[in-house]
Formats: sequence, C-alpha cells, structure tokens
Amino acid sequence: MNGLAAAIGIGVAAFGAAIGNGLVISKAIESMSRQPEMENKIRATMLLGVGLIEAIPIMAAVIAFILAFR
Amino acid sequence: MNGLAAAIGIGVAAFGAAIGNGLVISKAIESMSRQPEMENKIRATMLLGVGLIEAIPIMAAVIAFILAFR
Amino acid sequence: MNGLAAAIGIGVAAFGAAIGNGLVISKAIESMSRQPEMENKIRATMLLGVGLIEAIPIMAAVIAFILAFR
Amino acid sequence: MNGLAAAIGIGVAAFGAAIGNGLVISKAIESMSRQPEMENKIRATMLLGVGLIEAIPIMAAVIAFILAFR
Amino acid sequence: MNGLAAAIGIGVAAFGAAIGNGLVISKAIESMSRQPEMENKIRATMLLGVGLIEAIPIMAAVIAFILAFR
Amino acid sequence: MNGLAAAIGIGVAAFGAAIGNGLVISKAIESMSRQPEMENKIRATMLLGVGLIEAIPIMAAVIAFILAFR
Amino acid sequence: MNGLAAAIGIGVAAFGAAIGNGLVISKAIESMSRQPEMENKIRATMLLGVGLIEAIPIMAAVIAFILAFR
Amino acid sequence: MNGLAAAIGIGVAAFGAAIGNGLVISKAIESMSRQPEMENKIRATMLLGVGLIEAIPIMAAVIAFILAFR
Amino acid sequence: MNGLAAAIGIGVAAFGAAIGNGLVISKAIESMSRQPEMENKIRATMLLGVGLIEAIPIMAAVIAFILAFR
Amino acid sequence: MNGLAAAIGIGVAAFGAAIGNGLVISKAIESMSRQPEMENKIRATMLLGVGLIEAIPIMAAVIAFILAFR
Amino acid sequence: MNGLAAAIGIGVAAFGAAIGNGLVISKAIESMSRQPEMENKIRATMLLGVGLIEAIPIMAAVIAFILAFR
Amino acid sequence: MNGLAAAIGIGVAAFGAAIGNGLVISKAIESMSRQPEMENKIRATMLLGVGLIEAIPIMAAVIAFILAFR
Amino acid sequence: MNGLAAAIGIGVAAFGAAIGNGLVISKAIESMSRQPEMENKIRATMLLGVGLIEAIPIMAAVIAFILAFR
Amino acid sequence: MNGLAAAIGIGVAAFGAAIGNGLVISKAIESMSRQPEMENKIRATMLLGVGLIEAIPIMAAVIAFILAFR
Repeated sequence: MNGLAAAIGIGVAAFGAAIGNGLVISKAIESMSRQPEMENKIRATMLLGVGLIEAIPIMAAVIAFILAFR
Repeated sequence: MNGLAAAIGIGVAAFGAAIGNGLVISKAIESMSRQPEMENKIRATMLLGVGLIEAIPIMAAVIAFILAFR
Repeated sequence: MNGLAAAIGIGVAAFGAAIGNGLVISKAIESMSRQPEMENKIRATMLLGVGLIEAIPIMAAVIAFILAFR
Repeated sequence: MNGLAAAIGIGVAAFGAAIGNGLVISKAIESMSRQPEMENKIRATMLLGVGLIEAIPIMAAVIAFILAFR
Repeated sequence: MNGLAAAIGIGVAAFGAAIGNGLVISKAIESMSRQPEMENKIRATMLLGVGLIEAIPIMAAVIAFILAFR
Repeated sequence: MNGLAAAIGIGVAAFGAAIGNGLVISKAIESMSRQPEMENKIRATMLLGVGLIEAIPIMAAVIAFILAFR
Repeated sequence: MNGLAAAIGIGVAAFGAAIGNGLVISKAIESMSRQPEMENKIRATMLLGVGLIEAIPIMAAVIAFILAFR
Repeated sequence: MNGLAAAIGIGVAAFGAAIGNGLVISKAIESMSRQPEMENKIRATMLLGVGLIEAIPIMAAVIAFILAFR
Repeated sequence: MNGLAAAIGIGVAAFGAAIGNGLVISKAIESMSRQPEMENKIRATMLLGVGLIEAIPIMAAVIAFILAFR
Repeated sequence: MNGLAAAIGIGVAAFGAAIGNGLVISKAIESMSRQPEMENKIRATMLLGVGLIEAIPIMAAVIAFILAFR
Repeated sequence: MNGLAAAIGIGVAAFGAAIGNGLVISKAIESMSRQPEMENKIRATMLLGVGLIEAIPIMAAVIAFILAFR
Repeated sequence: MNGLAAAIGIGVAAFGAAIGNGLVISKAIESMSRQPEMENKIRATMLLGVGLIEAIPIMAAVIAFILAFR
Repeated sequence: MNGLAAAIGIGVAAFGAAIGNGLVISKAIESMSRQPEMENKIRATMLLGVGLIEAIPIMAAVIAFILAFR
Repeated sequence: MNGLAAAIGIGVAAFGAAIGNGLVISKAIESMSRQPEMENKIRATMLLGVGLIEAIPIMAAVIAFILAFR
C-alpha cells in the first residue's frame, strides 16, 4: 500500500508542478520577446518563481521517497 | 492507511499550491514587463502573496509528515 | 480512518484556498501596476480579503489537526 | 466514520467558500482601482457580501465540529 | 451513516450557495461602481437575490441538522 | 440509507438551484443598472423566473423531507 | 434502495432543469431590457419555453414520487 | 435494482433535454428580439426543434416507466 | 442487471442526442433570422442533419428496448 | 454482464457521434447561409463527413448487437 | 469480462474518433466556403486527415472484435 | 483481466491520438486555405507531425495486442 | 494485475503526449504559414520540442513494456 | 500492487509533463516567429524552462522505476 501511496502522491504533485511551471515560463518567454531590454530581470523573476512553486511539490517528493523505501 | 492518507493530502495540496502560485507569478511577470519602474514593489507583493498562498498547504504538509512518521 | 479523513479535509481545503488566494492576489498585482498611486489601499484590501478567504479553511485545518491527533 | 464525514463536509464547504470569496474580492479590488472615490462603499458591500457567502459554510463548519467531537 | 449523509448534503449545498452568491455579489459590485447613483437599488436587489438563492440550501441545512442529531 | 438519499438529493438540487438563480439574478442586476427606467419590470420578471426555476428543486426538497422522516 | 433511486433521479433532473431555465430566463431579461417594446412577446415565449423544458423533469419527478412511496 | 435504473435513466435524459432545450429557446428569444418581423417563423422552428430534441428522451421516459412498474 | 443496462444506455444516448440537436437547431435559428430568404433550405438541411444525428442514438434505443423486455 | 457491456458501448459511441455530427452540421448550416451559391457542394461535403464520422460508431453498434443477442 | 472490455474499448475509441473527425471536417467546410477555388485540394487533405485519424481507432476496433468473439 | 487491460489502454490512446491529430490537421487545412502557395510544405509538415504524434499511441497498440493474445 | 497496470500507464502517457505534441505542431504550422522565410528554424525547434516532450512518456513506455513482459 | 503503482505514477507525471512542455514550446515557437532576431535567447530560455519543468516528473520516474523493479 505504501508504494501505491508514493506513486499517487508524486504523480499528482508532478502534474501540478508541471502545469504551474508551464504557466510561468510561457508567460516569461512572451514578455521577454516583447521587451528584450528587460531580459535579465524577467529571467531572474522566472527562476525565483519556479523555485517558490516547487517548494511544496518537493515536500511531496520527500514524503514519496520515505514511503517508497519503507 | 496512514501512508496513503499522507500522500493524498500532500499531493492535492501541492497541486493547488502550484496552480495558485503559477497564477500569481505569471501575472507579476506580465505586469513587471509592462511597467519596469514598479519592479521592486511588484516583486515584494508577489513574494507576500506567495507566502500567504502557501500558509494552508504548509499545514497540509505538516499533517502529512505527522501521518507519514506515525 | 481518522488519518485519511484529516488528509482529505486539509488537502481539499488547501486546494481551494490556494486557488482563491491566487485569484485575489493576481488581480491585486494587476490593479497595482495600473494605478501605482493606490498601492497602499489595494494592498490593504488584498490582505483583508486573504484573511477573510482563509477563515473557513483554517477551521478545516483545526478539524484536521483534531482528527490527526486523535 | 464520523471523522471522515466531518473532514469531507468542511473540506468541500471551505473549497466553495474560498472560490466564492475570491470572485467577490478580486472584482472589488478591480472596481476600487477604477473608481477610487467609491472606495468605502465598495469595501462595505464587499464585507457584506463575504458575510452572506459564508453563512452556509459556517453551518457546515458547525455540523463538522459536532461530528468531529461525537 | 447519518453523519456522513449530513456532511455530504451540507457540503455540496454550501459549495453551490457560495458560488451562486459569488456570481451575484461580484456583478452587483461591478454595476455599482459603474453607476453610483443606483447604489441603493442595486444593493436592495442584491440582498433580495441572495435571500432567494439561499432558500433551497437552507432546507438542505435543516435536513443536515435533522440527520446530524438523529 | 434513507438519510443518505435525502442528503444527496437535496444537496444536488440546492447546488443546481443556486447556480441557476445566480445566473438569472446577476443578469437582472446588470440589465437594471443599464436601463434604470425598466427597473420594476426587470425585477418582476426576475422574481417570476426564480419562482419557475425553484419548482423542481422544491419537489426534490419534498422528497428529501419524506425520506428524512421515514 | 428505492429511496436512494428517487433522490438521485429528482436531484439530477432538478439540477438540469435549474440550469436550463437559468439560461432561458437570463437571456429573456437581457433581450427585454434591450427592446422594451417587445416585452410581452418575449415574456410569452419565455413562459412557453420554460414549460417545454420542464416536461421531461416533471416525468422524472413523477417517477421519483412513485419510487418514494413504494 | 429496477427502480434505481429507472431513476438514473430518466434523470440523465431529463438533464440533457433541459440543457438542449435551453440552448435552442434562449437562441430563439435572442433572434426574435433582433428581428421582430420574423417572430412567427422563429417560434414555429423553435417548437419543431424542441419536438425533435425530445424524441429520444421520451423513449428514455418510456423505458423508465416500464422499469418503474415492473 | 438488464434493466440497469437499458437505462444507462438510453440515458447517455439521449443526453448526447439532445446536446447535438441543440447545437444544430440553435445555429439554424440564428442563420434563419439573418437571412430570411434562405429559410426553406436551412430548415431542410436542419431536418436532414437531425435525422443523421439520431441514427446512432436510435440504435441505442433499440438495444435498450431489447434489454428492457428480456 | 453482456447486456451492460452492450449498453455502455453503444451509449458512449452514440454520445460521441451526436456531438461530432452536431459540430459538422451546425458549421455547414452557418457556411451555407453565408454563401448560398455553394449550397450543393457544402451539403455534399457534409454528407461525406457525416458518413466518415459514423464509421467507427457503427462498428460499436455492431459489437453491441453481437453482445446483446449473445 | 471480455464483452465488457470490447464495449468499453470500442466506445471510447469511437467517441474520440467522432470528436476528432468533427473538428477536421467542420474546419474543412468552413475553409471551403471561404475559398471555393481550393475546393478539391481541401477535400483531398480532409480525406487524408480522416484516414490518418482513424488509424488508431481501427486498431481498437480490431482488438474489440477479437475480444468480442473470444 | 488482460482483455480488459488491452481494451482500456488502446481506447484511451486512440482517444488522445484522435484529438491530437484533429488539432494538427484542422490547423493545417486552415493555414493551407489562407496561403495556397505553401500547400506542399504545410502538407509535408502535417504528415511529419501526425507521424510523431502517433509514436506513443502505436506503442500502446503494441502492448494492447500483446495483452489481447496472451 | 501487471497487464492492467501496463495498459493504464501507457494509455494515459500516450494521451498526454498526443495532446502536447498536437499543441506544439499545430502552433508550428500556423507560424510557418505566416512567416515562410523562417520555415527551417521553426521546423527544427518543433522537432526539438517534440523530442523533449516525449522524454517522460517514453520512460512510461519502458515501464509498461517491463510490466507487460513480467 | 507495486506494478500498478508504478504505472499510475509515471502515467500521470508524463501526462502533466507533456502538457506543461507543450505550453512552453508552443509559446516559444510563436514568439520566435514574431521576433526572429531573439531566436537564440528564446531557445535558451525554452530549454531552461523545459529542464525546470521536468525536475519533479523525473523524480516520479525514479520512484516508478524503484517500484517496478521491487
């Protein structure tokens, strides 16, 4: 049962993280192509945002690893 | 059963947090590229908002850790 | 069974709170970048709104903690 | 079984309340930034609306507390 | 089983009432900010509408209380 | 089993009635603010419509009460 | 089992009837406010349409009453 | 089991018929208010369309009555 | 089990047929009000289309009658 | 079990076929009313398309008849 | 069990094929009515596309026939 | 159980492949009708794209055949 | 159970890969028809993107083959 | 049970990764065709974004491989 739990948890979290990151990065590419002079600031904010988004999914990954090796 | 509960809880919470953060950060990048002179204020509000959004999911993570180590 | 209940309750509540907060904060950032002179009032209303939104999810968190430690 | 019932009830109610409040508050912030001279009336209506929205979810919270402590 | 029934019924009803009220109140705030001279009539209609919307959910709450105390 | 049936029936019916009423009333408020001289006729049609919408959900409430007291 | 069947049938039918009526009535109010001189004809067509929409849900209500009193 | 089958069948069919009729009638009201000189033809086509839409749901109602009285 | 099968099959088919017919007929009414001189051709094509759409659902109705009388 | 299988298969296939045909025929009516001189070619293509769409659902109907008479 | 598997497989595949074909053919009719001089090429590409779309659903039909006659 | 697995796998894969191909081919027909001089290149890219899309569903078909003949 | 697992895994992965590839390739065809002089670069980026998208689904295919031959 | 868990986990993760990558790459192709002079920077950001998106799904793949070979 622990293996199933680990797979469900990491799967749903990976799904959400991929969609959330996709929203941020696609908007960043769009803004970057409109205003090339702000390229560095947008990329910095994008990386900051991706780091913040992945905070909770990484906790989910930790719990999934704990459950997978139990 | 506790492992399954921990995985479901943290998975759904991570899914919601990723989507919610994605909405905020993508809107922040868009606004930032339109009005570069407000960059610092928008980034500050974005970080404040991300912190507020993650308040409940972190409680979910705490409950998931409690259940995972029971 | 109580652990599963706690995880489902806090997970769904965290999902809803994250989406709801995301709507409010992204709209606040957008309005703030359009009218910089109203920055303080919009931020105050945003914090008021986030507090009101999280009233019910925090009750859910309380019930989840009660169930998790039973 | 009562714990599971309490968690499901409060979770779904919190989800709905958060989405509903998010709609109202984000619209209020948008209107407030367009017409700053109506700030007080819009905030008053917003608080009235949030109170009306949370009437039924609070009944759900009461039932959930009754079930959780049974 | 009665507790689970009470929680499901009040939860779904609270979800619907919150969304329906959210639609009405957000539209009322938007209309009010466009035509400030009609503020009182719009607020009166809004309160009338909220009362009509909550007629069926309150019956659901009554049934849920009956089931919760059985 | 009768309690569960009553709760599901009234819950789904209340959900639908709230959404349907929300559509009608929000549209009525919007139309009323655009043409203030038709206020009385729009309100009369709105009340007529709400009454027609709630015809079937009230039958659902009657069946739910019958089942809840059986 | 008959009680559960009655509740599910009337609940889903009430949900659909409320949404369908909501579409028709909200469109009627919108058209009425645009062309006030056609008010009577639009109201007549609206009542005709609501009657046609509720033909099948009323059969569902009849079946639900049959099952509820069996 | 036959009662449950009758309720599910008539419920889903009533749901679909209500939505489908709602689409047709709301579009008819909209067209009628734009071109008042075509009122009779549009109403005739609307009634023809509603009759055609309800052909299959009425078969579902027949099957549901057969199952309900078995 | 055959009764349940008949009800599910006819219910889903009736749902689809109602939605599909609703799309066609509402579009036909819209086109007819824009170009009144093509009224007969559009009505003929509409009836042809409704006949084609209902080909498969009528097979579903046939199978449902076979199962209901077995 | 074969009856249930036949009903599910034909039901889902009829649902898809009705929606797909609805898309094609409604678009054909719209195009026909815009360019009346192409009426015959559009109707021919529409009939060809409906025939192609119903190729797979008719196989589903064949399988459903095989299962229903087994 | 094989009959149920055959029905589910062919049903879902027929649903997808109908929707996919509907998208292609409706777009083809729209393009054809805009540029009548390209009628033959568009029809040829449409038939090619429909053939490619139905490649995988026909494999599903083959597997469903194998399972239905086992 | 293997037959059910084969049917589910090929069914879902065929559903996805049909939708994905439908998106590509309908867009190709639209582009082709706008710029007739690029007809050959667009058709070549369309065929390349359809081939790439069907890479994974064909693996699913292979697995489904393996399971169906086991 | 392994066969069912293989079919579910490859089916869902093939569904996602087909949708994702469809988004990329349809956008590539659209851009290519607007700017024919960039045809080679867009096709190269499209192939790069399709390769990146299919990285995870191919891992899913590998796991599905491992499970199918166990 | 471990095989089923591995397949569900990798399947959902592959689904999310494909959709997320599809959003980013399609937006990148669109931006690239609008501003050809920024081609290299957009492609670099696209590759960076794809790498970030696939961080969590690759963890899911690792867990799936661990479960598949247990």
